[in-house]
Amino acid sequence: SYRDLAGFGRRFIDVDAEELLADVVYQIGALQAIAQACGSTVSYVKPHGALYNTIVANREQAAAVAAAVHLVDAGLPVLGMAGSAFFDEAARLGLRTVAEAFADRAYHPDGSLVSRRERGAVLDDPAAIAERVATMVTSGHVTAIDGARVAVDVESVCVHGDSPGAVQIAAAVRDRLRAAGSDIRAFC
Amino acid sequence: SYRDLAGFGRRFIDVDAEELLADVVYQIGALQAIAQACGSTVSYVKPHGALYNTIVANREQAAAVAAAVHLVDAGLPVLGMAGSAFFDEAARLGLRTVAEAFADRAYHPDGSLVSRRERGAVLDDPAAIAERVATMVTSGHVTAIDGARVAVDVESVCVHGDSPGAVQIAAAVRDRLRAAGSDIRAFC
Amino acid sequence: SYRDLAGFGRRFIDVDAEELLADVVYQIGALQAIAQACGSTVSYVKPHGALYNTIVANREQAAAVAAAVHLVDAGLPVLGMAGSAFFDEAARLGLRTVAEAFADRAYHPDGSLVSRRERGAVLDDPAAIAERVATMVTSGHVTAIDGARVAVDVESVCVHGDSPGAVQIAAAVRDRLRAAGSDIRAFC
Amino acid sequence: SYRDLAGFGRRFIDVDAEELLADVVYQIGALQAIAQACGSTVSYVKPHGALYNTIVANREQAAAVAAAVHLVDAGLPVLGMAGSAFFDEAARLGLRTVAEAFADRAYHPDGSLVSRRERGAVLDDPAAIAERVATMVTSGHVTAIDGARVAVDVESVCVHGDSPGAVQIAAAVRDRLRAAGSDIRAFC
Repeated sequence: SYRDLAGFGRRFIDVDAEELLADVVYQIGALQAIAQACGSTVSYVKPHGALYNTIVANREQAAAVAAAVHLVDAGLPVLGMAGSAFFDEAARLGLRTVAEAFADRAYHPDGSLVSRRERGAVLDDPAAIAERVATMVTSGHVTAIDGARVAVDVESVCVHGDSPGAVQIAAAVRDRLRAAGSDIRAFC
Repeated sequence: SYRDLAGFGRRFIDVDAEELLADVVYQIGALQAIAQACGSTVSYVKPHGALYNTIVANREQAAAVAAAVHLVDAGLPVLGMAGSAFFDEAARLGLRTVAEAFADRAYHPDGSLVSRRERGAVLDDPAAIAERVATMVTSGHVTAIDGARVAVDVESVCVHGDSPGAVQIAAAVRDRLRAAGSDIRAFC
Repeated sequence: SYRDLAGFGRRFIDVDAEELLADVVYQIGALQAIAQACGSTVSYVKPHGALYNTIVANREQAAAVAAAVHLVDAGLPVLGMAGSAFFDEAARLGLRTVAEAFADRAYHPDGSLVSRRERGAVLDDPAAIAERVATMVTSGHVTAIDGARVAVDVESVCVHGDSPGAVQIAAAVRDRLRAAGSDIRAFC
Repeated sequence: SYRDLAGFGRRFIDVDAEELLADVVYQIGALQAIAQACGSTVSYVKPHGALYNTIVANREQAAAVAAAVHLVDAGLPVLGMAGSAFFDEAARLGLRTVAEAFADRAYHPDGSLVSRRERGAVLDDPAAIAERVATMVTSGHVTAIDGARVAVDVESVCVHGDSPGAVQIAAAVRDRLRAAGSDIRAFC
């Protein structure tokens, strides 16, 4: 995340690449120690909030995040959007990339997400969401907010944990994918 | 350190043990990742500033710091004052303790340090400091500010890096110890 | 308050008097502007959390808080405990002091509050609390946790706004005081 | 300033207008109290760092800053760039605007400043700077980095206090303006 406790990482900050790299190294390390203290480990890195969205296109910040992960543990996979600057930079460093699709968010025809500030950006009907995800997985496509057909790459499905109904949505998606014959497993 | 950027960790904070434990876990992890990013590793833990002094006697905070180190890596040695609550708690958890003496600070007869706020607390003559350290190492004693003879345990010698003349002091101590036939090595 | 967002000001910090003074000046000013922006004004100063408790006895910090209020607006009354170091220092600077009693907290025989960490420290029965406050106001005494009779000075009554039942407690206290013939008015 | 201690306010943050307004109210108030404690007063408001530059064009943030000043004290003049969104919004609220020119910075033909990241952005020769400012004041024009003639409105001249040579530059500008018959006075 951006170093932004006051904004919970949800606001773009025009931070220098070098500082961003340092912040990400720092945070991964802190998280690793917390995981270790709980008898677990960090097994992948997913940028949070505004940083996630920014490094879809911002190459300088994307490179900083990829470099930070690589410096701490080159074996850590990264989660993000297929086709993003972040994935380019991560792949260039030899990091494993895991493409994520969003269960409960509307897409633009170019494959980017509709901003939460716009109407229709967030979906909330578990059955409709489950059907949508099943289609993404089986067809490799999703219907954009304008009706266009957009290719999506789905290795992981994101359900936002702070949405109302998150548990119901996740369960519906899991059940629908299983019914479609998809086996759901941790990617790491 | 206490979580206290504004005070650079130099002020006692009456923090709950559970939060202190979490802060120390977090900081060790962040430091490990920074070290890793620089091609190095964290090889011991030394509490900083006010926390160092507090856990000489504050058993609850001492136990929290020892538990934090133990949770992150039970193989990390800890630096501190011999006879401190921190060393008790660290030893109880099986951590290796490394006793530290202070080259450039005056001692009370009970083996605690004279506060920086008091006159004569900080020594600055490299030759006198070097002689003092050599005596500590060879005799196991140091002369307290009131003239008393105090037992000290010296496995590591602290020269404060932000003192003026720190480099000269460190070099004088090293040379004097070598002249006294002491071999100086990393303890880890 | 101490400058301690992470601890919500509830933890003692051994801060220098000069820094504490600066923090309090800063906070009063910020609050004044917020009040002004809302069409209101700051009409008194009550230290928050750990700072409130500390300056009952810590004269250096008490003097810093009093000096801060005096520097910003010597006409601002201060709320606190009668007999405290804070009231001494405030009175010395000519500030008006307003003695506060606690509706929902147990007292020690010396007039200090029983720590929240101890059993019986917080009272929660609105009727009993109302009766207790009425007795404080009419007799100038309160029964301490050990049964002793303690003199209290009551110009203002504190009901903690974050206690469950705060509104019921405040209403019960108001009604009981009115029934006892006490007129309740803002002190400023 | 943006609420950004870690970045000293020098980085754009995509903060909500409502939060920015609150931050600016808070900061003006804190500053007023500090000034009051020093026997002075705040007599104008000049946004700092990245916020200054952002609200040249970002209307939402510009409106938030203007509203904040207006809420705290509608009599406070604001310093900024003539023609900016900030000046529009400030004028709409009836705030007095004071147009600022930059002594030691290169201009683009559109009247905006050349970014510090570009070569030639910062001027450092006191005599040349003084001449440049005198021309701005007497002719109402400045030569842009590409040689174009740009209209400038100069009610106040900014010399960056953290530039090396700031004092020499300020003195040279003052002397040159006086020699040109300009009387230099506080605008408030």
